[in-house]
Amino acid sequence: MGTSLLIGRRQIAEIVNSGRFVLFITVLILINAVTLGMETDQGLVETYGTYLHVIDKLILIIFTIELALKFYADRFDFFKSGWNLFDLTIVTIAWVPASGALAVLRALRILRVLRLISVVPQMRRVISAIGHSIPGMISVGGVLILIFYVAAVITTKLFGAHPDPNMQEWFGSVSASAYTLFQIMTLESWSMGVVRPTMELFPLSWLFFLPFIIVTSFAVLNFFIGIVVDSMQIAHKMEAEEQGTDDDLPVTKKDFRLLIAQMEAMQKELTSLKAENEGDILAEQNYEFVDEQVR
Amino acid sequence: MGTSLLIGRRQIAEIVNSGRFVLFITVLILINAVTLGMETDQGLVETYGTYLHVIDKLILIIFTIELALKFYADRFDFFKSGWNLFDLTIVTIAWVPASGALAVLRALRILRVLRLISVVPQMRRVISAIGHSIPGMISVGGVLILIFYVAAVITTKLFGAHPDPNMQEWFGSVSASAYTLFQIMTLESWSMGVVRPTMELFPLSWLFFLPFIIVTSFAVLNFFIGIVVDSMQIAHKMEAEEQGTDDDLPVTKKDFRLLIAQMEAMQKELTSLKAENEGDILAEQNYEFVDEQVR
Amino acid sequence: MGTSLLIGRRQIAEIVNSGRFVLFITVLILINAVTLGMETDQGLVETYGTYLHVIDKLILIIFTIELALKFYADRFDFFKSGWNLFDLTIVTIAWVPASGALAVLRALRILRVLRLISVVPQMRRVISAIGHSIPGMISVGGVLILIFYVAAVITTKLFGAHPDPNMQEWFGSVSASAYTLFQIMTLESWSMGVVRPTMELFPLSWLFFLPFIIVTSFAVLNFFIGIVVDSMQIAHKMEAEEQGTDDDLPVTKKDFRLLIAQMEAMQKELTSLKAENEGDILAEQNYEFVDEQVR
Amino acid sequence: MGTSLLIGRRQIAEIVNSGRFVLFITVLILINAVTLGMETDQGLVETYGTYLHVIDKLILIIFTIELALKFYADRFDFFKSGWNLFDLTIVTIAWVPASGALAVLRALRILRVLRLISVVPQMRRVISAIGHSIPGMISVGGVLILIFYVAAVITTKLFGAHPDPNMQEWFGSVSASAYTLFQIMTLESWSMGVVRPTMELFPLSWLFFLPFIIVTSFAVLNFFIGIVVDSMQIAHKMEAEEQGTDDDLPVTKKDFRLLIAQMEAMQKELTSLKAENEGDILAEQNYEFVDEQVR
Repeated sequence: MGTSLLIGRRQIAEIVNSGRFVLFITVLILINAVTLGMETDQGLVETYGTYLHVIDKLILIIFTIELALKFYADRFDFFKSGWNLFDLTIVTIAWVPASGALAVLRALRILRVLRLISVVPQMRRVISAIGHSIPGMISVGGVLILIFYVAAVITTKLFGAHPDPNMQEWFGSVSASAYTLFQIMTLESWSMGVVRPTMELFPLSWLFFLPFIIVTSFAVLNFFIGIVVDSMQIAHKMEAEEQGTDDDLPVTKKDFRLLIAQMEAMQKELTSLKAENEGDILAEQNYEFVDEQVR
Repeated sequence: MGTSLLIGRRQIAEIVNSGRFVLFITVLILINAVTLGMETDQGLVETYGTYLHVIDKLILIIFTIELALKFYADRFDFFKSGWNLFDLTIVTIAWVPASGALAVLRALRILRVLRLISVVPQMRRVISAIGHSIPGMISVGGVLILIFYVAAVITTKLFGAHPDPNMQEWFGSVSASAYTLFQIMTLESWSMGVVRPTMELFPLSWLFFLPFIIVTSFAVLNFFIGIVVDSMQIAHKMEAEEQGTDDDLPVTKKDFRLLIAQMEAMQKELTSLKAENEGDILAEQNYEFVDEQVR
Repeated sequence: MGTSLLIGRRQIAEIVNSGRFVLFITVLILINAVTLGMETDQGLVETYGTYLHVIDKLILIIFTIELALKFYADRFDFFKSGWNLFDLTIVTIAWVPASGALAVLRALRILRVLRLISVVPQMRRVISAIGHSIPGMISVGGVLILIFYVAAVITTKLFGAHPDPNMQEWFGSVSASAYTLFQIMTLESWSMGVVRPTMELFPLSWLFFLPFIIVTSFAVLNFFIGIVVDSMQIAHKMEAEEQGTDDDLPVTKKDFRLLIAQMEAMQKELTSLKAENEGDILAEQNYEFVDEQVR
Repeated sequence: MGTSLLIGRRQIAEIVNSGRFVLFITVLILINAVTLGMETDQGLVETYGTYLHVIDKLILIIFTIELALKFYADRFDFFKSGWNLFDLTIVTIAWVPASGALAVLRALRILRVLRLISVVPQMRRVISAIGHSIPGMISVGGVLILIFYVAAVITTKLFGAHPDPNMQEWFGSVSASAYTLFQIMTLESWSMGVVRPTMELFPLSWLFFLPFIIVTSFAVLNFFIGIVVDSMQIAHKMEAEEQGTDDDLPVTKKDFRLLIAQMEAMQKELTSLKAENEGDILAEQNYEFVDEQVR
């Protein structure tokens, strides 16, 4: 069983990762995107409903086989790749019988189209780069969540106790406050819609909302720009690695230190050369001296 | 025919690309911008309508002749320049008889003023730089479109099935959903206008909308900043090339590697020099040795 | 008293800064965040109110003891750290009897959760970096405040004198104007909500509002991006210092000048070597000359 | 007259530019800012009106004398400084009798407070940096204005002809269209307020508005970020110049070329040294040959 199976696994890995197979899957994803889009149109469903469902089921079966083959090829290394887990989740969701409380899962079948990201290398790189840049921004994100939670508790305590129906709707609970504060942070109707009516009941409430807007707008900008800049640098590095050249990357202090080290080596060599030379001259001077003495 | 025509084509190319001719065309575009603007004013049309039309027709004829001359000068290389194709499209639109369903084309005559971009080198460079930076951002754009399509299908499935007229208007079809999601992405009335009313029917819909806003806002920022930064770098490089100096560009790893290579060459030379010198000393030592032996 | 007390202070400083103690405080902060959040829910307060208050009081006492220990350990150096002052303010607020006009302070007890920032080093670094980047942006902020004040006085003078109730509400006083201008700067309902109604009374008011929007949007972007970029660089430097390596930082003119200086030293050495060598050759030529003369 | 006057002008220039005088003017500007702010309050004007007016007049007289002294000191070089022209305009506005159609000028007296920018060097630098970065962005700004004009003419032609009162108000003329398009560009109520109502009359109008929003949002971002980044670099350079050190600026290709040139000089020297050395060895070999022949 050993060898033959080993070859079998390798061959399957080769097939599954071959350009043709990936293209085949890509085409299936695109077809599925179209059929799932058509399913939202009542008229089209009435006329072609059965065809659409058959195609959908077929593609789902092929995706399931693809995943089974990948699992067969990689065994438990399969679970080490985030992309495989992503594909597995999406395919699993599609197999769950979507009835009752889970009816919403029928709508999530379209998530399958997001597999395109895991299949097209360029898109994969974009997401990878963003994924790699997130850890560096966790602390900024943490500060942001902390500010949000604190602000939500404060507004619930201050404004949510008021019997006014607007106050109840906007700040009645911590979760209602958090939603309203998110709306305010996005600047949507913050003044005309929320803060001006609140100021009629609490004239000094601007003392809370204006700093909140300034701080969170800044924190979000900080968070997003941090990720964008980091992910752009990471994407550049990834591209450079793939192309096997980092010609266009900027010079870092590390590169520079290599140069300095090389230079120091040269200088040492030069100094030793000079010393030898001086020894040389000394030798010659000695020689001349000897010569002179001889004569 | 040969030589005389060849000279003819060259001469025409020279004329068409001369500073005076470009200035003449620029002035015509600006005059046309004014006359087309005046045509929107009912009062001005009643008084000067005929003059405005005559000027418009005249300028269109001159633009057509200009393009004909350019085509005559460059032959089929004419079609290799995107700017020529742009000018050709705009002039062609102006000649199409604008009646019936094509009446909208009359309004598009003003697009002719965009020819200014193809005529003024500085503006041309801006557009070129943006154009050059787009390919690098196609994958981010692709991810964005994918997210949009998936989100539009989900919202149509989830909310578009509800009989509420607002739900029908906002999420009744994939295209209606896509428009509404675009509005939400731009943050326009997303909460007071769309999500709060939707939450009255689907209390958990914020579970979809809040992540959607965060993800798409970030993706758009990523997309735009990527293009802005890339196009700024490309514009700087273009400017450096035009000025014949890249003095202010940052040093890249490529430059650095040239330096390292040069340094290694020097070190090699230094080592060989040292070796020779040692040989030298050896020779001298030999010499001394011989000398000593002689004596 | 001397030695024993000195050891006591050192030991306490060690305890207070130890990983375990910091973890203990972090856990207390998180528990407190939960209990203070639960206190906003009427139902939970009725059932568990007494427990929540006891826990809250206990945690506050521990925080107070912690601060007392820190003060005992550092003496008046305690007040040199902004983080200590921050913690002190928050704990003091919690002890002030919150009744009457100070009832609002009860809502501010949740600010205690922000202590998490001063306890978690990663979050601390984020805030430090932003704090360090603010001085460089003070002038941009100053220009922004100046523009705001000038604009608020102008709108109060121009539009606030009008008897229309909207004008009175929006521009009736300098502070009302400043709030409205802040709303306009954030682009919230600026046109449909404020400027279009104002233009019905003052048709030329767009001459003020459009430049105001352009200038302040730009100034805010300038201000925020300035801080974001500066704080990112500062955070990178801080991280580099903590890790003890600045490998990935870009090369500066200062580094470069060190290289140039080193190179000049080498060149000098090389020149002196050459001079010696030529002297050498000269010497040899002399020698040969002598030799020749001898023979 | 000659010498004494020359000294007089120099002395005045010294006084006018002295730290004390600048501080005096700064304090006056701040006092004036307060009094002009107080003048907007009806109650304060009734009680202190006369005092406020006297202070205002006095400060205006001092500012006028200051400008006269500066003009006396610099003669016509006075007009070469943009800051002087700025101060002159503001002071002149304040002297114009503000009655009838010019009553608006009374409200503009507060512009005097903007003199603070010309007096405080840090703020002056911010504005200078922005001023220096604008020329580089003129082409982006030009493209933006062009797009705006073209879009305004198109919408006036397409939607402004419709008898609907909203269409008349929003797109009735090129200027009305430009204002509405500016509102749409800032994303204020673009969908709920303008485009959805327009789409009820012109169902395909989103084909115009969506690309318009995408293109102008991007162009504005490009424009603003371009200026922000450029002005930050310029401000850094200015600061470096003032501090007399550019230690923290990045290394440019120009610096690098100097290094390469220096290195080439060294290599040349090294090569010549080697050649001499070989000549040396040759000489020695000759010598040895001679020696051998002698023996």
